[in-house]
Amino acid sequence: MALKTISENRAFGGVQGVYAHASTETGTEMTFSVYVPPHAQGAKLPVLWYLSGLTCTHANVTDKGEYRAVCAEHGVIFIAPDTSPRGQDLGGDDVPDDAAYDFGQGAGFYVDAVQEPWAKNFRMRSYIERELPALIAEHFPAADMARQGITGHSMGGHGALTTALRNPGRFQSVSAFAPITSPMHCPWGEKALGGYLGDDRAAWRDYDACALIEDGAALPDLLIDQGTADQFLKDQLKTGLLALACKKAAIPAQIRMQEGYDHSYYFIATFMADHVQWHAERLG
Amino acid sequence: MALKTISENRAFGGVQGVYAHASTETGTEMTFSVYVPPHAQGAKLPVLWYLSGLTCTHANVTDKGEYRAVCAEHGVIFIAPDTSPRGQDLGGDDVPDDAAYDFGQGAGFYVDAVQEPWAKNFRMRSYIERELPALIAEHFPAADMARQGITGHSMGGHGALTTALRNPGRFQSVSAFAPITSPMHCPWGEKALGGYLGDDRAAWRDYDACALIEDGAALPDLLIDQGTADQFLKDQLKTGLLALACKKAAIPAQIRMQEGYDHSYYFIATFMADHVQWHAERLG
Repeated sequence: MALKTISENRAFGGVQGVYAHASTETGTEMTFSVYVPPHAQGAKLPVLWYLSGLTCTHANVTDKGEYRAVCAEHGVIFIAPDTSPRGQDLGGDDVPDDAAYDFGQGAGFYVDAVQEPWAKNFRMRSYIERELPALIAEHFPAADMARQGITGHSMGGHGALTTALRNPGRFQSVSAFAPITSPMHCPWGEKALGGYLGDDRAAWRDYDACALIEDGAALPDLLIDQGTADQFLKDQLKTGLLALACKKAAIPAQIRMQEGYDHSYYFIATFMADHVQWHAERLG
Repeated sequence: MALKTISENRAFGGVQGVYAHASTETGTEMTFSVYVPPHAQGAKLPVLWYLSGLTCTHANVTDKGEYRAVCAEHGVIFIAPDTSPRGQDLGGDDVPDDAAYDFGQGAGFYVDAVQEPWAKNFRMRSYIERELPALIAEHFPAADMARQGITGHSMGGHGALTTALRNPGRFQSVSAFAPITSPMHCPWGEKALGGYLGDDRAAWRDYDACALIEDGAALPDLLIDQGTADQFLKDQLKTGLLALACKKAAIPAQIRMQEGYDHSYYFIATFMADHVQWHAERLG
C-alpha cells in the first residue's frame, strides 16, 4: 500500500507527519496524521489512536490537541485518522443530506454502512479496524502494534469505545473525551445509525457502547472526561448511560465530570496530558 | 472603551477569551485574545504579549501555540493581538497590493504608516504600544501592567523586539521566535517599510531592531529561538545580524539555533514553554 507524504515537521524532538493514501475500504483518498516522538534507532513504541468528532478531519486534533509534548515525554506514537471518506458526489449525485454537519462527510460514525448510497464508501469501521492499522504497521517501523491504546472525542469517543469493545484484547488502554455514549438513545446517533444501517435497531447494537456492554463486551478499565458546561451533554452524550452500563457490568470506569468545561478543543487540550499518561502507563 | 466578548472557554483551569473593540487608532474593529490563568480573587498577574507573524490573526497562536498549560502553571496572562486592521476597502478602493500576503492586511509590521492610503488605518505601533494596553488595564483587573513581557514570531518577533527597544523599562522580559531581525535588510522588510513609511530610510530605523540597538537602545537580556530548517532564515530573518548587533552592544542574548525546526507553529509550540517560563522568571 503506497503512502503519500503531505507534510512532515519537526515538533518536540519528533516528527509530526500528515499522509494520504488510496483506501480500498472507502474507495477514496484518505488523509491522516501521525506523530512519532523522538526515539532510539530501532526502538518500538506504543501507539495511541485518536478518533475525532463530527465535522472534524485529522487536522483539528493535530492543530489544537496539544498531545505532542506529552507523547514525546512518554514515547507514544499518536495517530489521528479522518472521520469519513470525502469527495464530490460521494455515494452518487442524489445523495440526500450530505451537507448536514451530523451525517455524511465529516460524520462517518465509525460504521460500515449497509444502506445505499452509503454502503460503497462509508466503511469507516473496516478502515479503522483493519486497513489503516495494516498501513501503519507497514510504513512506521517504530510502531509496536502489540501495544495499542484508543481514545477519541464526541463521535470519536463513541468510535473509540465501540472499536475497543468489539475487539477484545487489541487495545490495552481505552479512554474518551465527552463521548456519545449511546447512539441508540440520542438524536445524532439515531439519525446516523438509521441512515447508514437502516431501521432494524438490532443491527445498531454493534455500534453502541452501552448495548455492547449489556451484551457482554468488556474493557479492562476506562477513563472518561466530560465537561459539565458541555452544550451536548444532556441531549446527545448522556454520560450517565455509560456510567450505569459500566456499573452493572463491573467495568472499573473513572468518569470525571469537569466543572465548567465545554465541548471544545480547549477542554480536550486541558486533559490530553492526563489521557496520554494514562495510556502510557497501561501500554508500558 | 467598550469591549465585546466573542467567546470565552474554560481551559487549563482559566479562561481563554476572544474579544473585539472599536479601535480609535486603526478606525476599525480589532480582535484579540486573552488567556487569564486560574488565580486567587484579587491577585495581580504579569502579562505576556505575543505578536504574530505575516498572514496571522490572533487565532493562530490561540489555536496552535500551546501556551495555556505553562501560563496556568506560572500564573501568566497571555495576550495575542491581530497583525493589522481589517476590512473591505481599507485605505480606499484603489489600495495597491493589499491582496499580497506580505503587505497590507495581515501584514501591519507594527508600524504607524505615514504613506497614503495606509496612514489613516495602519497604526499598529500606536495600537500595540498605547491603545490595547489601556484597554487591557481597564477590562482585566488581574493584569498587572507594571509587569509586562513581550514576545512574537517572525514579523511579530520584529514587532516584539522593536516595541521593547523603543520603550525602555516597560518590558522586564523580551524574547522572540524566528524574528525578522533587520527589516531594512530583507525583502519583506524593505517592501513593508518602504510602502508604509516612504523612501527615507532614516525613518525606518525606529522599526529595525538592529538599527535601534546600533543607535543605543538596549535590553536587559534576550532569548531567541530559531530553527535551522527555517525556509526564511537566510533571506528574510538573518539571525546573524541580531547576534552581531547584540554582541557589539554587549546585550546578553541567548540565541539558540534549533536543529531541524522550520518556521511553523510546530516549532513555536515546541519552545513555547521555555519562553513562558523564561518570562515568568523575570516577571516575578
